[in-house]
Amino acid sequence: MDIGPPECLKTALSVTPKLLMGPGPSTSSPRILQAVRQSVLEHTDPDLFKIMDDIKEGLRYAFQTKNVLTLAISGTGHSGMEAVLSNLLEPGENVLIAITGTWGDRAADMARRYGAIVNTVSSKFGTTLKLSEIEDAVARVRPKLFFIVQGDSSTGVLQPVDNLSAICRRYNCLLAVDVVASLGAVPFYMDRWGIDAAYAGSQKVLGAPPGLAPISFSPRARDVIFSRKTPAPVYYWDMKLVGRQWKCFDEDRIYHHTISSTLLYGLREGLSILADEGLEHAIQRHRTCAKRLYNELEKIGFELFVENEDDRLCTVTTVYIPDWVTWDDVALYMRRYKSKNASKLKKKGFRSH
Amino acid sequence: MDIGPPECLKTALSVTPKLLMGPGPSTSSPRILQAVRQSVLEHTDPDLFKIMDDIKEGLRYAFQTKNVLTLAISGTGHSGMEAVLSNLLEPGENVLIAITGTWGDRAADMARRYGAIVNTVSSKFGTTLKLSEIEDAVARVRPKLFFIVQGDSSTGVLQPVDNLSAICRRYNCLLAVDVVASLGAVPFYMDRWGIDAAYAGSQKVLGAPPGLAPISFSPRARDVIFSRKTPAPVYYWDMKLVGRQWKCFDEDRIYHHTISSTLLYGLREGLSILADEGLEHAIQRHRTCAKRLYNELEKIGFELFVENEDDRLCTVTTVYIPDWVTWDDVALYMRRYKSKNASKLKKKGFRSH
Repeated sequence: MDIGPPECLKTALSVTPKLLMGPGPSTSSPRILQAVRQSVLEHTDPDLFKIMDDIKEGLRYAFQTKNVLTLAISGTGHSGMEAVLSNLLEPGENVLIAITGTWGDRAADMARRYGAIVNTVSSKFGTTLKLSEIEDAVARVRPKLFFIVQGDSSTGVLQPVDNLSAICRRYNCLLAVDVVASLGAVPFYMDRWGIDAAYAGSQKVLGAPPGLAPISFSPRARDVIFSRKTPAPVYYWDMKLVGRQWKCFDEDRIYHHTISSTLLYGLREGLSILADEGLEHAIQRHRTCAKRLYNELEKIGFELFVENEDDRLCTVTTVYIPDWVTWDDVALYMRRYKSKNASKLKKKGFRSH
Repeated sequence: MDIGPPECLKTALSVTPKLLMGPGPSTSSPRILQAVRQSVLEHTDPDLFKIMDDIKEGLRYAFQTKNVLTLAISGTGHSGMEAVLSNLLEPGENVLIAITGTWGDRAADMARRYGAIVNTVSSKFGTTLKLSEIEDAVARVRPKLFFIVQGDSSTGVLQPVDNLSAICRRYNCLLAVDVVASLGAVPFYMDRWGIDAAYAGSQKVLGAPPGLAPISFSPRARDVIFSRKTPAPVYYWDMKLVGRQWKCFDEDRIYHHTISSTLLYGLREGLSILADEGLEHAIQRHRTCAKRLYNELEKIGFELFVENEDDRLCTVTTVYIPDWVTWDDVALYMRRYKSKNASKLKKKGFRSH
């Protein structure tokens, strides 16, 4: 051998459990962790097909949709974003992207790579986009697709998306919504609200490990995918093929890629836990917890970043960091790593966990 | 709610363990399954960075390389294939793809989607490509990239790749090798053999769950990536960004996507097991087991598909299926599902497991 076995791999893995309080991944429950350690199944095993079918049902409940093209992409939330953009856009087509935080910029970057003509409409940082601003932009740009984030984890803003489909229909435009940081914690009615494409991540409210991106396309979006003039640019998330692997169409199942059974186990259990609790209860619970957090943060002197309480995303609470610390300091301290201002932070009421 | 919680999710997950004898995924060992059930860590946690560093070391050992751009893509083997093609090719560029089974066709499909001009050189089904055939094709096509599969799981053929770099250098062409079904089980010396890009899957010889694609790029390939005229078409596997997340360059780590800690735990342990055993021993063990399998299969009357024993891939043994059964029948029977010809199969010496 030219390269010897590395020293660092001579010891077995040891992971110190941490309570995850960031915008995601969330801490997985013991039931989910127990599930992901079950034996690996082949991607062509009928037992795994049953689990995939369960997941499709659970996702239709979470998205509140009857869309047949509903499944989990084998990648993280970003791959859901990229799957939506790459399947619905072709080179030279107009897309309108709402910039309400980091994720709009990310979507714009991706859409440009696929050769789309990117137009944007931006909110004031930390506030929502108003309906009239969106309507004006759609009327001006006449995009094929309008993309917006429901819960932006980079700002903690909750963007209303219940009232956008009328505008999009009027200008014959598809409506795609990122619900990565919000699905399961705030109301989302994909069918009732006329949303054409939506995607999430397994590791946020659903509490499963990262690695899967739940996704759903309306019949209208599916028709657009099936009538593309050019092939979907990325094989890995070509929905015509992935949809067949998930048996979303009336065609035989095909092999597309080696789906990760262990990740599916985790997502299946996350969805089962959500179904047990009920969406209404999960939404209420997130709201209640967030309100308690706002109160406690304000008690110890923090100012919340999103002024208007109705505009706050209950899953991600953003605060101004006092000028005598850096956010890196706070994050390290809360994760029990050494940080420069640990004693000051402790005195002010921060608790590491 | 418009859609109620689905009945099928009212029961908890139950997985019947199966001994996996297909071309992959392989059965994960208890040590690996125990690892993947450890608590989820955030993608920005220094503890996870340490695990990523361990994995980079382990992969350099497995690939036998000193390449700094060595990491695991957050997707299955297919995403490794697509990452190689999308990073190394630009629209309008010539690629030469060796068709020695299904995976060459798959690579050709992907490369076409990225706008490359696809040229192919095909072997007779079930045999290797000869050096002269490859040299003739490279000289004729003058591709930017030559792509070939070392171990084709669709045919069970082992393609020699130790002697290709001289040809590729002569015609100033990059050499990419798919080692999904072979890495860790047959000799592979990335640096010694002058290979510019290689990728594998976590779920084959390494025995971890599917969901990660180990990948490595030579300094020459890295220079090509960094001097692209167009941006990498896919954000999710833009190696300039993924490489920074994995701290492969002398730059600060960035957030690119929410990497799956549980999948990393599994891969880290798979690599640790390989380092413990040693590559030489693992290779010898696969060879010995394969020979025993060949003998037993021939004893019960099977004809092996790859005639020449030196051309056989020791991880995937292919046989002619007798004309009185279908391969589907055999696969179902071996997985203990009902199959039409179960009694005949049993009589002939097949054992379900």
